[in-house]
Amino acid sequence: MTALIGIIMGSTSDWETMQHAAQTLQQLNIPHEVEVVSAHRTPDKLFQYAEGAEDKGLEVIIAGAGGAAHLPGMTAAKTLLPVLGVPVQSKALNGMDSLLSIVQMPAGIPVGTLAIGRAGAINAALMAAAIISNKHTEYRQALTDYRQRQTDSVTATPDPRKVTQ
Amino acid sequence: MTALIGIIMGSTSDWETMQHAAQTLQQLNIPHEVEVVSAHRTPDKLFQYAEGAEDKGLEVIIAGAGGAAHLPGMTAAKTLLPVLGVPVQSKALNGMDSLLSIVQMPAGIPVGTLAIGRAGAINAALMAAAIISNKHTEYRQALTDYRQRQTDSVTATPDPRKVTQ
Amino acid sequence: MTALIGIIMGSTSDWETMQHAAQTLQQLNIPHEVEVVSAHRTPDKLFQYAEGAEDKGLEVIIAGAGGAAHLPGMTAAKTLLPVLGVPVQSKALNGMDSLLSIVQMPAGIPVGTLAIGRAGAINAALMAAAIISNKHTEYRQALTDYRQRQTDSVTATPDPRKVTQ
Amino acid sequence: MTALIGIIMGSTSDWETMQHAAQTLQQLNIPHEVEVVSAHRTPDKLFQYAEGAEDKGLEVIIAGAGGAAHLPGMTAAKTLLPVLGVPVQSKALNGMDSLLSIVQMPAGIPVGTLAIGRAGAINAALMAAAIISNKHTEYRQALTDYRQRQTDSVTATPDPRKVTQ
Amino acid sequence: MTALIGIIMGSTSDWETMQHAAQTLQQLNIPHEVEVVSAHRTPDKLFQYAEGAEDKGLEVIIAGAGGAAHLPGMTAAKTLLPVLGVPVQSKALNGMDSLLSIVQMPAGIPVGTLAIGRAGAINAALMAAAIISNKHTEYRQALTDYRQRQTDSVTATPDPRKVTQ
Amino acid sequence: MTALIGIIMGSTSDWETMQHAAQTLQQLNIPHEVEVVSAHRTPDKLFQYAEGAEDKGLEVIIAGAGGAAHLPGMTAAKTLLPVLGVPVQSKALNGMDSLLSIVQMPAGIPVGTLAIGRAGAINAALMAAAIISNKHTEYRQALTDYRQRQTDSVTATPDPRKVTQ
Amino acid sequence: MTALIGIIMGSTSDWETMQHAAQTLQQLNIPHEVEVVSAHRTPDKLFQYAEGAEDKGLEVIIAGAGGAAHLPGMTAAKTLLPVLGVPVQSKALNGMDSLLSIVQMPAGIPVGTLAIGRAGAINAALMAAAIISNKHTEYRQALTDYRQRQTDSVTATPDPRKVTQ
Amino acid sequence: MTALIGIIMGSTSDWETMQHAAQTLQQLNIPHEVEVVSAHRTPDKLFQYAEGAEDKGLEVIIAGAGGAAHLPGMTAAKTLLPVLGVPVQSKALNGMDSLLSIVQMPAGIPVGTLAIGRAGAINAALMAAAIISNKHTEYRQALTDYRQRQTDSVTATPDPRKVTQ
Repeated sequence: MTALIGIIMGSTSDWETMQHAAQTLQQLNIPHEVEVVSAHRTPDKLFQYAEGAEDKGLEVIIAGAGGAAHLPGMTAAKTLLPVLGVPVQSKALNGMDSLLSIVQMPAGIPVGTLAIGRAGAINAALMAAAIISNKHTEYRQALTDYRQRQTDSVTATPDPRKVTQ
Repeated sequence: MTALIGIIMGSTSDWETMQHAAQTLQQLNIPHEVEVVSAHRTPDKLFQYAEGAEDKGLEVIIAGAGGAAHLPGMTAAKTLLPVLGVPVQSKALNGMDSLLSIVQMPAGIPVGTLAIGRAGAINAALMAAAIISNKHTEYRQALTDYRQRQTDSVTATPDPRKVTQ
Repeated sequence: MTALIGIIMGSTSDWETMQHAAQTLQQLNIPHEVEVVSAHRTPDKLFQYAEGAEDKGLEVIIAGAGGAAHLPGMTAAKTLLPVLGVPVQSKALNGMDSLLSIVQMPAGIPVGTLAIGRAGAINAALMAAAIISNKHTEYRQALTDYRQRQTDSVTATPDPRKVTQ
Repeated sequence: MTALIGIIMGSTSDWETMQHAAQTLQQLNIPHEVEVVSAHRTPDKLFQYAEGAEDKGLEVIIAGAGGAAHLPGMTAAKTLLPVLGVPVQSKALNGMDSLLSIVQMPAGIPVGTLAIGRAGAINAALMAAAIISNKHTEYRQALTDYRQRQTDSVTATPDPRKVTQ
Repeated sequence: MTALIGIIMGSTSDWETMQHAAQTLQQLNIPHEVEVVSAHRTPDKLFQYAEGAEDKGLEVIIAGAGGAAHLPGMTAAKTLLPVLGVPVQSKALNGMDSLLSIVQMPAGIPVGTLAIGRAGAINAALMAAAIISNKHTEYRQALTDYRQRQTDSVTATPDPRKVTQ
Repeated sequence: MTALIGIIMGSTSDWETMQHAAQTLQQLNIPHEVEVVSAHRTPDKLFQYAEGAEDKGLEVIIAGAGGAAHLPGMTAAKTLLPVLGVPVQSKALNGMDSLLSIVQMPAGIPVGTLAIGRAGAINAALMAAAIISNKHTEYRQALTDYRQRQTDSVTATPDPRKVTQ
Repeated sequence: MTALIGIIMGSTSDWETMQHAAQTLQQLNIPHEVEVVSAHRTPDKLFQYAEGAEDKGLEVIIAGAGGAAHLPGMTAAKTLLPVLGVPVQSKALNGMDSLLSIVQMPAGIPVGTLAIGRAGAINAALMAAAIISNKHTEYRQALTDYRQRQTDSVTATPDPRKVTQ
Repeated sequence: MTALIGIIMGSTSDWETMQHAAQTLQQLNIPHEVEVVSAHRTPDKLFQYAEGAEDKGLEVIIAGAGGAAHLPGMTAAKTLLPVLGVPVQSKALNGMDSLLSIVQMPAGIPVGTLAIGRAGAINAALMAAAIISNKHTEYRQALTDYRQRQTDSVTATPDPRKVTQ
């Protein structure tokens, strides 16, 4: 099937974080693609990717990067598709630099930013799923089920003392 | 026309920021509604709003709040619709508290977070427009034009010394 | 005995921190209950818990959560009981996000916030004990003894060079 | 009537913030007293105040201070009464220093901390009211009414565009 | 004369800061050019500018931007010329976002970052002058004189009490 | 009389802050001198000042600086006299940069750091006075009186409602 | 010999940091004493210690504490002796809370603050030595030697590649 | 060959970070020298180094330091050569103190600052290479090749799932 969602990241080292986005999309059975695209080391590839995304059928792009994280914002500058940004936790500043570099975009070019790290990667996938569900209603049910399962998992173990973490 | 996008905010004092979201949607001719809903002072109203949003035709919710900003996250907890969060600049901490309260959502419930303040409000509208354009393709052109105009405005005045700000 | 204090937390992973609140209440012989309630994954359960707390005899609620920590504030929005918030140390931002999400509540809905992590959990229990002691004076002596013991433990070992930590 | 709640602050310049605590208690008809007590400039007075507070009938102490704000914590070190801390917004660091100095108390001596500035002062009063309501049930109704009024004020003006701020 | 140094900025509103770079180069009689180039609103123009910079004779590029400041880093990604970044003071976060977005570049693509705001703009010009002086030794004397003047201005007024600021 | 305390600062613009150190020493009748010495613009003068300080009779040096504030630390590197550092509030980062640049000295070269801004300047003077009082006991009484006056000023106005600020 | 310098700390767990102050004083052969005194758990002992310090011959007090670190400031409030504060690195916030709680003292009561952690403990000892050397000139030579040794140790190994760390 | 670039650092412990600058220069075959020079422990050596740098043929100085990092700024104060600063990651504050101490230089004395830690050290070398390439054009090709290799390494492994990190 044609990928509806593209997951890109600035470095293979970001895969440790971004794999959670891919896994979540897999759980929801949403076709997606994954690729390393570096804003700084492969700027031309980034532009080609962003410019061609809509034509090849992508409907949402998820971009993860750390430090001076320019990938999400520069992708958004080159496409009208919704771009979701995942701040990867950086070594020295724990992802605060990644977060501010992604979320503080100037008026005109939006990046929907998620939490730093693994939670952000999972949520980027869930948000992308919610976005495409508006048109591809078949994924709405998958999302509903996903939510119900996580609600049930909390309800099922109300007493934390009985849980072996 | 039925509103496709709902703009909510925690307090009337947030309108100074959130009006920029409404104005941007107006420029794009996208039907929307605006309402004050407080997570803390009107929690039941918030739940009703979020639960009923999809049924009344909303496709995206933009939620703005400041300080311990719980409105976007709690709205997202009660709907499958994409929720975009706008951190309103707070008095003491300049919106850093608003930003972290909105963006650092745990895995499972995403909020697509935009920049602090006015830029974030404008970009929430642009992102909401991009999201609904996936289905309502008639808004894609409005977005394209919006982008072109802002590119042109930069290109038209390359020399900042000739600009009276 | 009927629980006077309710300890809730957003996730079973918070139990590592919140168990210190439970242990402290046990030392003081104050009846309490413990439950996982997630603001984001089980919002309806949270509302039911908060709305029913007073009727089932709770006099104080201790709520611990991390990241975009909405549990204490949303609990406070749905009950008149005093709510104490414990910021759980988060992975990326060390609990600064948890702290700001809990403490920076807007005027109208208070959350008495304690320190990040274990110290905050212990102190939430001690503060809850002080609060109920105002009415249940039998717990005042337990608190007095607790304080005396900790003063004595410092006084007993004035020379840190003689302590094996 | 005998004061049930004591409001203290480190300097007369803190009154601009702390008056909101006093005004809120007045609205709730809760007897209270107000005094300037400086941890650093009048340490002996602070100890006398904290030691004597319970005997003269106080049931909660609200302490506001800015910068290296030691007043709430040192008061808590000298009394078993619940102590609520209000971080006053400081000049250089916007109250972040005040907040951390108050909230990061070590295990053993709790201070229930509210938001920086005016919102924190109002909420300290509301929290103090909730605490004493546990015993003095006559103030529970005042609190209920206060909450209802603020809920109504949000509900009454759902459209921010119709509000003249 | 052919410009040796290019000053670019993301928005005309950055001119208030970046004019100090231009004025400093003027004092040093170093030929330079000034242009608004936005990474987000005119990404193609940015790529053309960076790619063509060396051919048209530029030897250093000074790039100023605020918020999620991607201009310096993306320019550096497209040229081998030394790129100096000036973090423009942003509204909400006082330029901390600008600073981190510029300075925290990943290994492989350097941006020499100066201080936030006016001081950074002046110093970018001085650093650019030092860089080109390595080859164009005629500017070394101008720099030497500039330094001497500023040393003299401090030495001339040793007593701050005699200075009308 | 020979100056016992030297007050230096990096720029005449720091005088607005550092004058409070001079005024406090005047109130205590302690002979002192004041001079602008810039670590960056007059490094040689700084070295001469620090090297010669002990010989000309100075017993403590108070150094105020803002931003990348190197003056106190470099002075301390060149003298055995106690050096007190006053972080001047900077424009963008509110003195957090000044504070960290002064206080985070490596092991081996101490700078006793005071608060950011005016309070720090006053306290640097008081601390210098306490230091020289160890030898010059005549200043001990002046300090005692200063303290008593400030204690009295708090005690005299216990009710902040009666104070016109 | 009578102790000239008192080292106090809020908890035995602070000894890991504060032992470096004691060791440094030992290297300088300066008589000192060490004691655990907790501002929060033993407030009365703190007051007695501070009040009695001058009479028993102490000339400087070094106080180390972490988190909401009130020990240095409260000691300074109760003595005219110079008080040096060492921010102990805290678990969640890495000592930023300790630093701000110690350094941001209000005008009137100074604490000379050193760096967070081990470097700060060593430097507190060196600064205390410098302070007492003003009167007890025999320690000036020890300080001079200490400095010379550390200068020599750097000069002796100019090439870091030849050092086994 | 005569060294064109000097790498200095405040302590041998900084070599763990700064070795990456040396290694990068080696890859580019640029002659360089390495030396430990401490602003605080060997201030005279620092001044001699900086003053003599130009005469012995250095064209760029790379200075790495942590904490209150004064080495880059003080070096820049004593030479007209371009100085690049590398903030070494500090223990307590993760290099935020190092970064601000280096980058926030006042107008008049520039330091081109790179990222915290290893990435900054590598990029300092690359930037130094770009600077000298302006005159020594033979190094331009080495830089071009370096860039091409890093672009190729990204392009060669587009799918992060196939990479063993």
